[in-house]
Amino acid sequence: MFFEITNYIGIIAFAISGMLKGLKYKLDIFGVTVLGVTTAVGGGILRDMLLNEIPGSLLNERDAYLAIAISLVSYLFLHNKLEGSKKISRFIMISDALGLAAFTIIGAEKGVNANLGPFSTAVMATLTGVGGGVIRDLLVSEIPFVLKEDIYAALCAVGGLLYWFLVLANQNMLGRENLAYGIFIVLFVIRLVAIKYKLNLPSKFREKEHENYKK
Amino acid sequence: MFFEITNYIGIIAFAISGMLKGLKYKLDIFGVTVLGVTTAVGGGILRDMLLNEIPGSLLNERDAYLAIAISLVSYLFLHNKLEGSKKISRFIMISDALGLAAFTIIGAEKGVNANLGPFSTAVMATLTGVGGGVIRDLLVSEIPFVLKEDIYAALCAVGGLLYWFLVLANQNMLGRENLAYGIFIVLFVIRLVAIKYKLNLPSKFREKEHENYKK
Amino acid sequence: MFFEITNYIGIIAFAISGMLKGLKYKLDIFGVTVLGVTTAVGGGILRDMLLNEIPGSLLNERDAYLAIAISLVSYLFLHNKLEGSKKISRFIMISDALGLAAFTIIGAEKGVNANLGPFSTAVMATLTGVGGGVIRDLLVSEIPFVLKEDIYAALCAVGGLLYWFLVLANQNMLGRENLAYGIFIVLFVIRLVAIKYKLNLPSKFREKEHENYKK
Repeated sequence: MFFEITNYIGIIAFAISGMLKGLKYKLDIFGVTVLGVTTAVGGGILRDMLLNEIPGSLLNERDAYLAIAISLVSYLFLHNKLEGSKKISRFIMISDALGLAAFTIIGAEKGVNANLGPFSTAVMATLTGVGGGVIRDLLVSEIPFVLKEDIYAALCAVGGLLYWFLVLANQNMLGRENLAYGIFIVLFVIRLVAIKYKLNLPSKFREKEHENYKK
Repeated sequence: MFFEITNYIGIIAFAISGMLKGLKYKLDIFGVTVLGVTTAVGGGILRDMLLNEIPGSLLNERDAYLAIAISLVSYLFLHNKLEGSKKISRFIMISDALGLAAFTIIGAEKGVNANLGPFSTAVMATLTGVGGGVIRDLLVSEIPFVLKEDIYAALCAVGGLLYWFLVLANQNMLGRENLAYGIFIVLFVIRLVAIKYKLNLPSKFREKEHENYKK
Repeated sequence: MFFEITNYIGIIAFAISGMLKGLKYKLDIFGVTVLGVTTAVGGGILRDMLLNEIPGSLLNERDAYLAIAISLVSYLFLHNKLEGSKKISRFIMISDALGLAAFTIIGAEKGVNANLGPFSTAVMATLTGVGGGVIRDLLVSEIPFVLKEDIYAALCAVGGLLYWFLVLANQNMLGRENLAYGIFIVLFVIRLVAIKYKLNLPSKFREKEHENYKK
């Protein structure tokens, strides 16, 4: 139930991010909707394809309809307000962080259920969390943002790994659901902190820039 | 039988469009052939992967051989003529519209047979119709044309939706085959009209340009 | 056994090539690792998805761990040396050719085992050999190198075709394993010769440049 609601919040936030990317490239109403839907459900579709299943969002079309509705409504009525208002951009940011955390847990749960190992579970978590955004960026010929702002994807991977280890180590002691809630909160908080303080992983290049700066 | 022939026409038109894109980027004989084949059969492959089947064009290699032959022949002998002649470019345009309509129906039929809902059937129709072109554009780092000239993909989506609703509503009254022919003709005609009058879906940006123009 | 070892060599060479591509675009430690792993195992994953199987490198994580380790180590400790030293760049080149030959045979074997025809077996061989590099290039918005330096991919395709025909023609006379060794050596040698003499397939455009040059 909790993950169903946060899943919807994620769908909404991801659809809006796809729609905004479409606006940036001046796409038409169909193009922005395609980007919105793809961003919202593309990660899960990729994950299910890797698991050799018919993608869940094709079998149950609920998520897709939500993403279409949000893309259309936000394109037609909101996009001027979206860019101006600080309140709305904060609202989107928080929705995005909620969605990321929810998608990560959902993907990790899928991986554990399919008896995958830790690496592959982390891949499932990461694809579910950022796969839609990667497809979105590829469709507009940008280098996927997760390769640049890597803490975003690294959070998903670490969340997936953590879930895998704790499910295996914890067995029946804590209950899987509590684990899921725990990791969800950790991911959500770290994500917000990372945004607030513009944290990222270490990079040779940033270090160098730093050194140059010191000189 | 009818859809087999129009399918071949589509393969030919799509292979040529892939070959031409390869020429634009000065690719070699292997590169243009890869683009030709990918454009011709890539959409169907993507669709079958989503339906969790081994792609039909890998199991039956007929379409692939046709696409390879067309790519090679048109690269080696025709491409100077292709660009000059108005007759040939009109012939390609009509083949392309025939292929688009045929691919859309074939994809929609696949979706209905797999018991998918209306959205997913529209996705199958659209992927079959324009998926190859999307892969072609991604391979040369262009934003997929369907996101810009969106009426092309929107036609596939609407065709798929229409097919889904009519098959369900009509049951045994008209016969599925007649439905398929009917929608085929509608798609084909609209496509040609859209090309002739350069129609596209409404866009915020075009409207604005229009307004600027009026001032 | 032989193909297990050459497979590892290929994983190492491909992971390094992914890491170097990440460096070129100044990606962070997570980004270069993602590119390294994707380049190393992405082709096989694509192949298995087309064959409607859960990708082998998700079920057995060995290759992925090797690729992660190589990406991290080469990023952290070696990349300055990698670019300077002629010895190391020759070592990478030879590893790359070994890996390409091994991946091609592994992919072709998969295709033959799945009862695919010659075209599809060539596709399996080519995807296994160059698919990882294609995904790597798409992720950084470059036109995949195989479309430009096409002899690389053409070798895989011809190797796959050859394997298919010889397995079918030869039945029990020579033994599949000997066939595999034979084609492996041919591919490896041609690849090295092609690098040494900068061979490529004929291209309309190169011919033209040549003609201009003669004038």
